[in-house]
Amino acid sequence: MFLIGQFDSPFTRRVGITMRQYALAFVHRTWSIFGDADRLAEVNPLIRVPTLVLESGEALVETSAIIDYLDSRVDPGVRLTPQEQPERYRVNQVVAMASGISDLAVRLFYEQRLHDTPSELYVKRMTRQIRQALAVLENERAALSSSFWFLDRITQADIAVTCALRHLGEAQPALYSRETYPALSQHCARFEATDVFKEIAQAFVPPA
Amino acid sequence: MFLIGQFDSPFTRRVGITMRQYALAFVHRTWSIFGDADRLAEVNPLIRVPTLVLESGEALVETSAIIDYLDSRVDPGVRLTPQEQPERYRVNQVVAMASGISDLAVRLFYEQRLHDTPSELYVKRMTRQIRQALAVLENERAALSSSFWFLDRITQADIAVTCALRHLGEAQPALYSRETYPALSQHCARFEATDVFKEIAQAFVPPA
Repeated sequence: MFLIGQFDSPFTRRVGITMRQYALAFVHRTWSIFGDADRLAEVNPLIRVPTLVLESGEALVETSAIIDYLDSRVDPGVRLTPQEQPERYRVNQVVAMASGISDLAVRLFYEQRLHDTPSELYVKRMTRQIRQALAVLENERAALSSSFWFLDRITQADIAVTCALRHLGEAQPALYSRETYPALSQHCARFEATDVFKEIAQAFVPPA
Repeated sequence: MFLIGQFDSPFTRRVGITMRQYALAFVHRTWSIFGDADRLAEVNPLIRVPTLVLESGEALVETSAIIDYLDSRVDPGVRLTPQEQPERYRVNQVVAMASGISDLAVRLFYEQRLHDTPSELYVKRMTRQIRQALAVLENERAALSSSFWFLDRITQADIAVTCALRHLGEAQPALYSRETYPALSQHCARFEATDVFKEIAQAFVPPA
C-alpha cells in the first residue's frame, strides 16, 4: 500500500500510526496538497490527504473510511476501534471531537493565511468551536485515572487526540497551551514519548 | 432520539433518511448553526449539525460516526453499509467522494459569503476539487446499468450522492447541471422521487 501525505497533517499521522500499530507495511509518499496537486489529483480527485492506495490500485480518500478499511485487515482483538457498543460509539465520539478540532484548525489557518482581512465573524466562530471542544475533552480526560482514554489499552481516541493536539499547538499556538489543558497535555506527552508516535511525526510546515 | 439540524444540510439529511430507512423514531430539532448556536453549543461544543442525542443523553457530533452507530441498532441484513469487503470500502469510498463534495460546497459558500474579496486561489482550488470529484462519480455511474450504485439494493452510496448533489445544485448552481452530469442526475432523480427522500428534504436556505 501507498500512504500519501505528510505527517504534519493530524489525519495522515493518525493513519500512519494506525498502520504501524497494525504492522501493515506501507510506502510513504510525502506529497503536499499544494506542491503536488497535479499528481495527487490523478489518484484522488479531491486532492486531499491522507490518500491510501491499495494493492488493487484503488485509492481511499477519507480518514475515517481508511481507518475502517484498515480494521478489516486485522484480527478483531487488535482493532483500535472497539467492535461492541457502547465502547464503539464512545471511542468514535472522542475521535470526532479531536478530528473536529483538527478540521477547524486547518480552516482557521487558511482563513488567516489566504486573506488580507480575515472574516472576523468566521474567525471568532471557529475559535469558539475549538475552545469549547478542548474544554469538554479536558474535563473528560481530567476525570479519568487510566493511562488510556478507554479500556486500559490504546484506542483511536488516544491516537486522534494526540495527533490533533500536537497539530493545534503548532498550527494555532495561541489556542493551545499545556497550562490551560493540563490533563490533555499529560495524555499527549505520554503517547508522544512512545516509539511509534516518535517515528510517525513531522513538525508542522505551513504551505508556501 | 433527537436529531438536530435542518435537512438543507446534506449531512443532516443523510442521517434523517437513514433513520427513516431503519424505522428508528426521532424527534427533529430544526436548529440552525448560526441562529441557535448557543443552545446547540450546550449539546455539541463543535456547534455543528447533524447532532444526534441518544436516549442516554449522550450526543454524537459527526455524520460518519452517527451512521456507524445507527448501523449497530439494526440487523446486519438491513444495514445500508455492507459488512463485508470489498463492498464495504467501495460503498464508503463513494460516500467519501460525495461527502467531500458537500464539505467543499459549504466551504466555498462561506468563502464567497463572508468575504468582500474571496481568495482567488482558494476558490479556484475548491472549484477544481468539486469538478474533478463530480467527473469521477459521473464516469463511474455512467458505467453502471443497475438502479442502485451497488448490490442491487439501496446503500449509503445512493443516499450520500443524492443528498450531496441536491445540495450542490442549490448552494452552488454554477457547478452542477443535469446536462453536464446526466448519469448522476438520473440517479438522483430516481431516489428523489421516492417517499422517504421526498419527506426528508428541505430547500437550501442560506444562513443570514
